[in-house]
Amino acid sequence: MSKGFLLVLSGPSGSGKGTVSQALLKKRKDIKFSISATTRKPRPNEVNGENYFFLSEEEFKSMQEKGEFLESAFVHANYYGTPKQFVLDEIEKGEIVLLEIDVQGALQIKKNYKEAVFIFLLPPTMDELKNRIIKRGTETEEDINRRFANAFKELDFVGEYDFFVVNDKVENAVKDIEAIIHSEKLRVKRHKDIKLNVLKQGGK
Amino acid sequence: MSKGFLLVLSGPSGSGKGTVSQALLKKRKDIKFSISATTRKPRPNEVNGENYFFLSEEEFKSMQEKGEFLESAFVHANYYGTPKQFVLDEIEKGEIVLLEIDVQGALQIKKNYKEAVFIFLLPPTMDELKNRIIKRGTETEEDINRRFANAFKELDFVGEYDFFVVNDKVENAVKDIEAIIHSEKLRVKRHKDIKLNVLKQGGK
Repeated sequence: MSKGFLLVLSGPSGSGKGTVSQALLKKRKDIKFSISATTRKPRPNEVNGENYFFLSEEEFKSMQEKGEFLESAFVHANYYGTPKQFVLDEIEKGEIVLLEIDVQGALQIKKNYKEAVFIFLLPPTMDELKNRIIKRGTETEEDINRRFANAFKELDFVGEYDFFVVNDKVENAVKDIEAIIHSEKLRVKRHKDIKLNVLKQGGK
Repeated sequence: MSKGFLLVLSGPSGSGKGTVSQALLKKRKDIKFSISATTRKPRPNEVNGENYFFLSEEEFKSMQEKGEFLESAFVHANYYGTPKQFVLDEIEKGEIVLLEIDVQGALQIKKNYKEAVFIFLLPPTMDELKNRIIKRGTETEEDINRRFANAFKELDFVGEYDFFVVNDKVENAVKDIEAIIHSEKLRVKRHKDIKLNVLKQGGK
């Protein structure tokens, strides 16, 4: 039996982690997406247990106190968190679980669950990073500048990660991540009874 | 600048490490082959400086005394060793160096140079392993039995390795190894100045 693993795909704003995650999940139906919990209200098209687990603040804080999150954060007046049990159950079943998360969240996970595989997504250039932040079009210039300054600082944390992937073209970033997944599936430490499996096949 | 790495492809007799190495090198001209030194006699089709450095026992022992091997061993009545300087020079230049070696040699390298990437090649079944040992046709039944018993014991050392690859079909084993190489090239720890590279491209 082999265990799966948690793949943490992270990077600063504008690195394109959302786009790359979606492209990867579309291509690879064998990868599970880690569903976050949040206290924010569902948007009209959002389904509980599919887009998010929608919780009341009480429920969220109760889980938080019991240490039931791999990481959690308070953003724009709402709580967000990654329920631990779902991830651990899927890994035990042999699944690969993808978690797309910002740098602060990834660093929290590294403290709580260092067995995860950490990928830092980089923009090809700082100009391109700024373009991507601007292109969202939903933010004020102040927001843009703050995000850019933040992204610039967050690049310093790449040293905390296992792998880096430069997101120049999405399809190439996806291929890089697929190679990492392929390779990590061959890791000895996640497999028990490798010898036994050889002996079983066709029997000696 | 990024450093290369030493890829140690290892496994018991009959795992097919020679065949897989050759197939990988044929496909990937970017990979350098680490040539071992040995005191055993060349087989009919083997070329000095290509398959091995064929040395006299005196030459070998002189290098051994000077600590010029990454590993060395006395196997089946002959000495084998991996000249250290060639490997380290290539890695410094950013090259990927492939070293095909038996299990005892790999374990020694792990002691002397744990930065290497260790892959254990497995036969799909023990029957197939025995077939492969027999197919060589160059050995006595006693040799065959000794190799088989040895291979069986050596499977226990898979836990010392980073990755395992089941050599059922050579082309699939090669693809597995290529994924490991692709992934290892994206390792943060072998790259300096990842942030600086982002800043340099197109300027900030």
